[in-house]
Amino acid sequence: MICIDWGTTSFRAFRLGKDGTIRDRRANTRGILNVPDARFSDTLRDEIGPWLALGESRVVLSGMIGSRQGWKEAPYLPCPATPADIATALTDIDFDWAQVKLVPGLSGRDPSGVAEVMRGEETQVIGVPSLMAEGGLACLPGTHSKWVTVTPGRIAHFTTHMTGEVYAALRGHTILGRTIRDGAPNGAAFESGVRRSGDPGGLLHHIFGVRAEALAGHLAEHDAGAYLSGILIGHEVRSGLTGASGTVVHVIGAPDLTQLYASAIAACGGFAERHDGEAAAHGLAAIGARAAWL
Amino acid sequence: MICIDWGTTSFRAFRLGKDGTIRDRRANTRGILNVPDARFSDTLRDEIGPWLALGESRVVLSGMIGSRQGWKEAPYLPCPATPADIATALTDIDFDWAQVKLVPGLSGRDPSGVAEVMRGEETQVIGVPSLMAEGGLACLPGTHSKWVTVTPGRIAHFTTHMTGEVYAALRGHTILGRTIRDGAPNGAAFESGVRRSGDPGGLLHHIFGVRAEALAGHLAEHDAGAYLSGILIGHEVRSGLTGASGTVVHVIGAPDLTQLYASAIAACGGFAERHDGEAAAHGLAAIGARAAWL
Repeated sequence: MICIDWGTTSFRAFRLGKDGTIRDRRANTRGILNVPDARFSDTLRDEIGPWLALGESRVVLSGMIGSRQGWKEAPYLPCPATPADIATALTDIDFDWAQVKLVPGLSGRDPSGVAEVMRGEETQVIGVPSLMAEGGLACLPGTHSKWVTVTPGRIAHFTTHMTGEVYAALRGHTILGRTIRDGAPNGAAFESGVRRSGDPGGLLHHIFGVRAEALAGHLAEHDAGAYLSGILIGHEVRSGLTGASGTVVHVIGAPDLTQLYASAIAACGGFAERHDGEAAAHGLAAIGARAAWL
Repeated sequence: MICIDWGTTSFRAFRLGKDGTIRDRRANTRGILNVPDARFSDTLRDEIGPWLALGESRVVLSGMIGSRQGWKEAPYLPCPATPADIATALTDIDFDWAQVKLVPGLSGRDPSGVAEVMRGEETQVIGVPSLMAEGGLACLPGTHSKWVTVTPGRIAHFTTHMTGEVYAALRGHTILGRTIRDGAPNGAAFESGVRRSGDPGGLLHHIFGVRAEALAGHLAEHDAGAYLSGILIGHEVRSGLTGASGTVVHVIGAPDLTQLYASAIAACGGFAERHDGEAAAHGLAAIGARAAWL
């Protein structure tokens, strides 16, 4: 089976054997924003043609490729949802060289009843077998981080935090950018920001400290980005851990990001277990195994 | 005496009588960013020339005109500070047609020891006599909102919240902008955002709801800006009121903004007393009255 996590700016494809192991992988920047004239069919053939030649005939896709801006819109499936629920809600796509099925995103409500959506992260959660078997809490950091609550066998509910996008907007489009210079990653400055997120005063106040501390000579400009990142991730983690202190959090994603989050989670009283983003391949395979193929 | 609040984008001048009443006023957009080639002296003469001809010879300035980007840098005075302390820390400016003195900004530390600065707001606080006499809590909403704690006769400490600037960055430079359309002010949507700020989940999560609720059809695009504003102002007000629920908050500024803040403060358990921004004139006069003139 061929499993593809096709996002806004990245394309990651995996060829899995019958035993579920990854036999081959491709990753590049042909995300949906980088596919000219919506030529998704041509792009897919170009990417996986050699694998089709090996006899592969089943392809499962997830991510923003199933959004209105993607190849075909796959309606959201409401939570709670099991992998089997998702497998019965796949959208077929016309493609001359293989059977292609699109995984729906999930919709839900946060604990206060406010609408939530995700598209792609559900396959990463499903790809962590211990989490799906026993239930637990997962964190998928990124532009729009997701905190997902799993009960045994199903995705129960989730919340989104705009951490990555807010970091970029603050750095690029507010006065904070004037006191932030690129620098080597500074773990101490990041941890200082995470601690700061626990102070009274709230996020809108804490971020001003990036500028005021730099002006006062207490914060070097090449450390200011890491400090701001620590403040934002710290706020996210504290919210995500509310009522769950001492909990194991399964952090799923790219290693540099999961390392930062693991350190913030530890500082805020949780325990992090890190998983890399290839979980998506295993989640897609688990869904594909339950799908109705010709 | 001539009292001038000279900010980044606005210029507001007042001519006060000996009894402290405002006799005349001028307001326009000749803030420091809009003065070509740093011709501050020419601009000032142009603005207040007719008043000088009436015999006025003392001018007090506050605001960003005293910053590094302004006419002359007036160093920050540390808190706590009385109007008399400020009056002894004025910076003289060369100007051929009158004596001109610049009010210093204030520096301080927030309750956690993190650096704070303000420049201009201190004169507005000093311009509310009941607040200065009895002490209390003031809120000066804006791009960088200030919450100022006054003990009788002095400004004790303060915190900054980047509420206005964060609103602009989120609306202009994140995905939230795609679901926000201009619309008539909607008090109900604003209040709904203020209530939302009290839910669990934190600011980074609440703001995503602007998009998710719009996508779900629960929030009209022309109400989404007011809802986002309510979320942000609600977070600021809840932080500002921490440990001070039931308190009177003196809200000082432009009427449209103080009205929004007053409604948020009431929704969050405080009591607002509104003052308009002309408080700056009275604060400058109180400082000027204690200054050493030739």
